[in-house]
Amino acid sequence: MNICTYTYEEYLHLVKSFHGSLAPGLIIGGFIVDLALKHLPEGELFDALCETPVCLPDAVQILTPCTIGNGWLTVFDIGRFAVTMYEKKGGQGVRVFLDAKKLGNWPEIRDWYLKRKKKQEQNFERLLAQIKEAGHDLLSVQRVRVEPEKIRRKKLGPVGICPVCGEPYPARDGECCRNCRGESPYTEIADIGTPS
Amino acid sequence: MNICTYTYEEYLHLVKSFHGSLAPGLIIGGFIVDLALKHLPEGELFDALCETPVCLPDAVQILTPCTIGNGWLTVFDIGRFAVTMYEKKGGQGVRVFLDAKKLGNWPEIRDWYLKRKKKQEQNFERLLAQIKEAGHDLLSVQRVRVEPEKIRRKKLGPVGICPVCGEPYPARDGECCRNCRGESPYTEIADIGTPS
Repeated sequence: MNICTYTYEEYLHLVKSFHGSLAPGLIIGGFIVDLALKHLPEGELFDALCETPVCLPDAVQILTPCTIGNGWLTVFDIGRFAVTMYEKKGGQGVRVFLDAKKLGNWPEIRDWYLKRKKKQEQNFERLLAQIKEAGHDLLSVQRVRVEPEKIRRKKLGPVGICPVCGEPYPARDGECCRNCRGESPYTEIADIGTPS
Repeated sequence: MNICTYTYEEYLHLVKSFHGSLAPGLIIGGFIVDLALKHLPEGELFDALCETPVCLPDAVQILTPCTIGNGWLTVFDIGRFAVTMYEKKGGQGVRVFLDAKKLGNWPEIRDWYLKRKKKQEQNFERLLAQIKEAGHDLLSVQRVRVEPEKIRRKKLGPVGICPVCGEPYPARDGECCRNCRGESPYTEIADIGTPS
């Protein structure tokens, strides 16, 4: 049993190293990405979309060339456990999702995923064993078309210098940057000088 | 010259392997993350925030335990080239940013970053050489406080089954999932059955 070009054990190792823990959702995510790639024509360039920020983006980033930082992976958070790989220009693609109708055979996965058991009532070993045994059998596949313009991040365009904070920002954001326009995540800020 | 625990050359290798290309912004991002970590007390647990989705999230994911999928890295897109590492609970942290006032010494970096030259007019070798030579000298540091509740993603809470698509979704989203409520990124969708 492989996950893309890795053995199952190699993939678990990568998960632990990148993600920090053996998150069950990320192991299922490996099977999701593997199944999506099996439905794509070889040699074409694909972008990826995750319908949740939870776990799945890491499966895509571990197993494909798509990352958040290079813009080929988008998190479009509509709360479903699904990954879509789609052709960059036309948007034709494949969507793989965890199929609730198939959870019946795997009670430990069902109770974990649908939160029917509290964390301390779950049996982690049994959960991982069922995930490994189930493999692709939890999943279903759809052909989809996405609108790449709706999803992909826009080109930055010209760069301005914000008259308030003095930092470069996308000029399209207006007369000052979004931080200084009131969208700041900071409540306090103080210069501590420079390293040199 | 090191970037966190890697030599400069090792870091470039990781960048190429994870990100797909030697993006200048990601090399600068390595120095940004390195400088931020140098200002943090050792042994505490930190979350990360990138002020742009461009390049910087990959520097954080390569160099720290924070990833998109494990929730310790947030992209809070206000368009500035900055990374903040902050203490998970209290939100005290360090913000490192590319300082426009320091670009004067590095004309190739300045013209690339402020988009004063078209791509074909840029000298990529000289750009990378200046980035390596500049290292931390392009950057400035601030002490900040972020509001973790404003930034970190919310717990999923109870899971429902969407009556329209039949898939699990966060029950807090309402009577059906956000996809079926009109936020779908898809224009076409067709089942193609199951792998088994």
